[in-house]
Amino acid sequence: MKLLKERILQDGKCYEGGILKVDSFINHQMDPWLMKAIGIEFIRRFATTNVNKIITIEASGIAPAIMTGYLMDLPVVFAKKKPPCTMKNYLSTTVHSFTKDREYEMVISPEFITPDDNVLFIDDFLAYGNTAMGILDLVEQAGANLVGMGFIIEKEFQNGRILLESKGVKVESLAIIESISNRLIKIKE
Amino acid sequence: MKLLKERILQDGKCYEGGILKVDSFINHQMDPWLMKAIGIEFIRRFATTNVNKIITIEASGIAPAIMTGYLMDLPVVFAKKKPPCTMKNYLSTTVHSFTKDREYEMVISPEFITPDDNVLFIDDFLAYGNTAMGILDLVEQAGANLVGMGFIIEKEFQNGRILLESKGVKVESLAIIESISNRLIKIKE
Repeated sequence: MKLLKERILQDGKCYEGGILKVDSFINHQMDPWLMKAIGIEFIRRFATTNVNKIITIEASGIAPAIMTGYLMDLPVVFAKKKPPCTMKNYLSTTVHSFTKDREYEMVISPEFITPDDNVLFIDDFLAYGNTAMGILDLVEQAGANLVGMGFIIEKEFQNGRILLESKGVKVESLAIIESISNRLIKIKE
Repeated sequence: MKLLKERILQDGKCYEGGILKVDSFINHQMDPWLMKAIGIEFIRRFATTNVNKIITIEASGIAPAIMTGYLMDLPVVFAKKKPPCTMKNYLSTTVHSFTKDREYEMVISPEFITPDDNVLFIDDFLAYGNTAMGILDLVEQAGANLVGMGFIIEKEFQNGRILLESKGVKVESLAIIESISNRLIKIKE
């Protein structure tokens, strides 16, 4: 996706430890028109699937997910990082966050993800794949079918794709970062 | 906003303590077409302002904010509930959450909210107004101008509007709940 790759090279910032910061257009300040283009590209990538619901995880996944859901006329459900006090009945899984170096609970209501659903998971980043594995667990607990996972940016060198594909997940990333070294971002052609 | 009011009466659930649950269409599962209609209504309500940026707070504010930003062709910034490890320089304020009965830190990068900005704050709920007061503090710290605050649902009986209007804030809510009692939701005409 040319527009996205150019934007990453123009506005992305990289730091020690393989960190890529895209907070001027994706996950703190957001560019809604880029999000729309991202939504269109996700539709193309998953055109052959029978998706009937988009799922994502708060907070940075919500913008690309709602834009994709809007364009496809499908409901969007976001998993929460802890159960609100009003949520009495939920499916739960534990995820290890590398960036925050701690475990967190991820929950979703079984009311909104059922055995009738063919869900597409959308998120901003694929790194080690821990969040995505948590989603896979929740989808399996719900008895739903996962048609695939779409990520705006994949950090290939952190091997999340290998983990997900070993579980049979169809993975699509709109920009694949091969390496971040010497403050130079290398994106796959 | 008729569509929203009807949806609240049809799908909203109420609980003891003035709690209104709208998690089947606003803040867990989301209806993107309703979000678009909400975005259009926010544009109408703030038509006379010179807004150049939308701000919101993670997580439930992101969907209505990105839809409004998309329709208005404006960038959207979401305040975060804690600073990520990659965020070195930020404006910060402390907010008391009534629903969670604890204090939390709310942060925003001064890179994305500046004295040149005329910002419109959008969120899902106005209750006691604590989150909104935190946003007002961040906007003032940044030296930006707040053109107004738009909420999908206002719980009038929790008096957030009185607090905000006493600070000179223009408040617009798309559905105003007068009372929630005996499991009956009463919405202002």
